[in-house]
Amino acid sequence: MIGIFDSGIGGLTVVRAFMEQMPGYDIVYFGDTARTPYGNKSPETVVKYALENTDFLLSKGAKIIVMACNTASSVATEKMAERFDVPIFEVITPAVELAIKTSGKSGIGVIGTMATINSGIYEKKIKQANPDARVYSFPCPLLVPLVEEGWLNKPETRMIVKKYLHPLKVRQINTLILGCTHYPILKKIIQQKIGKRVNIIDSSIAVVGKVKAFLENHVEVDSMLYKKGECRFFVSDVTEQFKKTAKDILKRTVILEHVRI
Amino acid sequence: MIGIFDSGIGGLTVVRAFMEQMPGYDIVYFGDTARTPYGNKSPETVVKYALENTDFLLSKGAKIIVMACNTASSVATEKMAERFDVPIFEVITPAVELAIKTSGKSGIGVIGTMATINSGIYEKKIKQANPDARVYSFPCPLLVPLVEEGWLNKPETRMIVKKYLHPLKVRQINTLILGCTHYPILKKIIQQKIGKRVNIIDSSIAVVGKVKAFLENHVEVDSMLYKKGECRFFVSDVTEQFKKTAKDILKRTVILEHVRI
Repeated sequence: MIGIFDSGIGGLTVVRAFMEQMPGYDIVYFGDTARTPYGNKSPETVVKYALENTDFLLSKGAKIIVMACNTASSVATEKMAERFDVPIFEVITPAVELAIKTSGKSGIGVIGTMATINSGIYEKKIKQANPDARVYSFPCPLLVPLVEEGWLNKPETRMIVKKYLHPLKVRQINTLILGCTHYPILKKIIQQKIGKRVNIIDSSIAVVGKVKAFLENHVEVDSMLYKKGECRFFVSDVTEQFKKTAKDILKRTVILEHVRI
Repeated sequence: MIGIFDSGIGGLTVVRAFMEQMPGYDIVYFGDTARTPYGNKSPETVVKYALENTDFLLSKGAKIIVMACNTASSVATEKMAERFDVPIFEVITPAVELAIKTSGKSGIGVIGTMATINSGIYEKKIKQANPDARVYSFPCPLLVPLVEEGWLNKPETRMIVKKYLHPLKVRQINTLILGCTHYPILKKIIQQKIGKRVNIIDSSIAVVGKVKAFLENHVEVDSMLYKKGECRFFVSDVTEQFKKTAKDILKRTVILEHVRI
């Protein structure tokens, strides 16, 4: 089946995108809710967690791995490729490719956690594809706690989003990458504050397109994946808030299975 | 020496109180920054972490343990006492005792993380001491991220504090317990928003009074504690933000030693 992990439950936006774009594929999800968030932790620690999470998903029968977490994708991709033989997908390259297509000569904005932005990965990948691109990256550390708290439409959330986006607003971007799988949950507010004319790239949707294209070209991998439409959701910690947010994201009640990593 | 642990670096407010009230005592601190925060995690997970943290501090020569974390104090105290032979101090009882003294017949407010408030521990302990007490408890989950982000005096922080304190404001309390070791860092704003006449109880100061009284009555324990004024600070993850916040709290540069738990 398709193995997906995230630092917590933000990665369920990726599961949602899989359910919409590739319905029927079995999924095993792991959310590292006992150690969440990753975004304010060091690269060494995040790499260690990414490797442990992948070991767990492989033990559950995953044949391909999707890192549904920008922080892990930004610091652990190389180490993951060294360590594991299965196909591994990260959420950064697909978003960058989409952004390059749509941005033309205008600037590209990137928002993400402190760890993702400090890694400089988006800027590096965009410049590799287009050395003339103008890229403006800003960390938005409070957005993950705001989403986890369920403050999705409060005035304080709107003010904080506005404050974070202000430096992008004045730089005439036409494309904004949501470099964190929690942020699609705030997409409406982000669109309002950055302006209607800015094209928002949702990395959760972008990565599914990438997996789909890969499987069409690799039928030997595709044939190993079960397609009974079954999903299992494992988490390293269970709380009422996680259950509620999971339900909000997937629009259905989700059974969270507790596992010690 | 005196062993102190917290989910992260909020517990440094307790170290600061020790330095002020009991200068000279050697301290070994552990901040679990690789797994922070604890406040939105389940009791089982927090208990596991508290036991692991204590094992580490004992291995470093701690002779007494202070849980400088309200979340751990609220769910792990019993298990800690079962498992370890050394004197263990938690931050809840000392704050409750102070609150009972000053509140008279007025209401007592308590603010803390989701886990602390959900545990009901403050209410239980206050009612044990004074069955007639009126207690109003509210979780303030965003205050820890706001402190960690360093947004100590922003308008958004003021708005969020005001919103969280509103239900307490209308209930005529005269005493407010800061049930999280991060909150003393926001004490000034909290005092402004709750009103000058409300007496704020800072659990970080309260616990040091308790330890001091204990050692005066237990010279055999006191004699085992080094008093060379040395402090060591261990953390399970190191980032620039942690270093900065540590410096802000202790008003001096702190060497954070990285350790894997």
